[in-house]
Amino acid sequence: MLSHSKIKNNITRQKNNLKTTLTILGCGSALPTRDNFPTSQILEMRDKQFMIDCGEGTQIRMRQMSIKTNRLGHIFISHLHGDHVFGLIGLISTFGMLNRTADLHIHAAAELKTILTPQLKFFCEEIPFKIIFHAFNPRVHVLIYDDRTVQVFTIPLKHRVPSCGFLFEEKPRDRHIIREMIDFYEIPTWRIPKIKQGEDFETKDGELIANDILTTMPEKPKRFAYCSDTAYYEKIIPIIEGVDCLYHEATFMNDELIRAKNTQHSTAQQAATIALKAKVKQLIIGHFSARYVNKNGLLNEAKAIFEKTVLGEDMKIYEF
Amino acid sequence: MLSHSKIKNNITRQKNNLKTTLTILGCGSALPTRDNFPTSQILEMRDKQFMIDCGEGTQIRMRQMSIKTNRLGHIFISHLHGDHVFGLIGLISTFGMLNRTADLHIHAAAELKTILTPQLKFFCEEIPFKIIFHAFNPRVHVLIYDDRTVQVFTIPLKHRVPSCGFLFEEKPRDRHIIREMIDFYEIPTWRIPKIKQGEDFETKDGELIANDILTTMPEKPKRFAYCSDTAYYEKIIPIIEGVDCLYHEATFMNDELIRAKNTQHSTAQQAATIALKAKVKQLIIGHFSARYVNKNGLLNEAKAIFEKTVLGEDMKIYEF
Repeated sequence: MLSHSKIKNNITRQKNNLKTTLTILGCGSALPTRDNFPTSQILEMRDKQFMIDCGEGTQIRMRQMSIKTNRLGHIFISHLHGDHVFGLIGLISTFGMLNRTADLHIHAAAELKTILTPQLKFFCEEIPFKIIFHAFNPRVHVLIYDDRTVQVFTIPLKHRVPSCGFLFEEKPRDRHIIREMIDFYEIPTWRIPKIKQGEDFETKDGELIANDILTTMPEKPKRFAYCSDTAYYEKIIPIIEGVDCLYHEATFMNDELIRAKNTQHSTAQQAATIALKAKVKQLIIGHFSARYVNKNGLLNEAKAIFEKTVLGEDMKIYEF
Repeated sequence: MLSHSKIKNNITRQKNNLKTTLTILGCGSALPTRDNFPTSQILEMRDKQFMIDCGEGTQIRMRQMSIKTNRLGHIFISHLHGDHVFGLIGLISTFGMLNRTADLHIHAAAELKTILTPQLKFFCEEIPFKIIFHAFNPRVHVLIYDDRTVQVFTIPLKHRVPSCGFLFEEKPRDRHIIREMIDFYEIPTWRIPKIKQGEDFETKDGELIANDILTTMPEKPKRFAYCSDTAYYEKIIPIIEGVDCLYHEATFMNDELIRAKNTQHSTAQQAATIALKAKVKQLIIGHFSARYVNKNGLLNEAKAIFEKTVLGEDMKIYEF
């Protein structure tokens, strides 16, 4: 018979199927290019899909990537510029044709409902699911979504129209129970959920087994921050500090600093500076101006400040 | 010195740079696929671009094909289903960013203006060009566009909502003047336009030169018909008879005849039957259901009835 410690050492880490991934559907800016569609991405966290922004062609990219959306219930819209919302009506219309029945929640500034409602009435009157609008004030940092495992907060940004980013935070995960311990101590199934949450276990013989013998530490809850569109804005730093992954817009290179300032966008250098100051673990840059066919200049500029930068690419999946 | 007849025989046909081409941007149906965007195409006739329908992603396809749109003044919308109009707002918005100044004319059923206006007000208030809506009644066959060289007529179709196709007809082209005759008879430049239109020419010595010595026949005016979306509908035959090119929807194969009927679409066999009965010169089929990954079945079905059928393909240019 194996000892406790041997069992604990021998275990292979339970795969808990709770990968956190970011799928970029489009990371261009207002003008689409050969490589980049306008902005949209899907965050997969705790087995749920969250869509962030929905530029024109979002549903096309999803088809091109064969993305199933049965776990997509919530869409978050950063601001009401066309390149972040023009894909909504087509996506909703297609969900209708595919006979979706689950409610679809759209989180956005209040005006979106006003704009979208007449279109929905005309084009999507017979869709077999409900659309529920949740209005938020993009000017304040607040909790706008909360379920058993994930919370979403707004991140007020600085742009030509009210704009905000989103901070997705996992709630603490359950501890991993060691399969062999279940057999060893004959733990009944009904006790397992509580043990995963940290309870000790008393055997039939009255022996108290401490939780840390039965379980291993869960992964640290993941945090993802999305910041687009925005000028360089240090006020976001305390909110996004230490996130596992930051997506920050980098519309221009630094030689277009004045244009960046005028249009209230960021340069790659500025995105990297924010990443550095916020001590994030990884930076993905995106929302590139159509002028940059080759994006190595943007990447190099950012990496010179913050080494752990990667380029956003349409139809690429990032795991963190 | 060359004789008249030798000159006439020796001439190489003047290239008149007036090719008629159809560029398919999208020929999918409501659900986009890996290969097919929703419906949109650009007809180039007499040095002008006419857009027909504008599904989601139209502007993206134009970027992917590097299509310049400085000669695009008129957009024709067949009917108000999303897969034929959702790309309009993005296209207009992009034209604004590219500082277009020329008026943009949109020909459609009257409701389009009502739906599009609130969006234009919100997203495109500052665009530097005018949008002019022209409402037509899709239930009747009428002239809706007329300029010096091209006319456009509606073709009432049979669909779940009022829908019409479009017949584009060139007006007769000028005769080709034979360059060598200009030198031979010392024809002054100011006389050339009239000679191209058929006038004879009197030389300095009072000799009357018949027009058919000076010119060759122009190409026959081209005619293009677009018919989508529609059930099999023989009433269109007299309108489209003998066109140089017919684009006709073929959403399904014939084993889905009942579904075609219920959704008021056509099968490939039906599209070909229309082409055959209308004695058109060439048939392009399109608006394919997403179920057909390989479209050879559709093509073969049509070709069995009408040999001169080709498949519609996104981003392909057809010349006729």
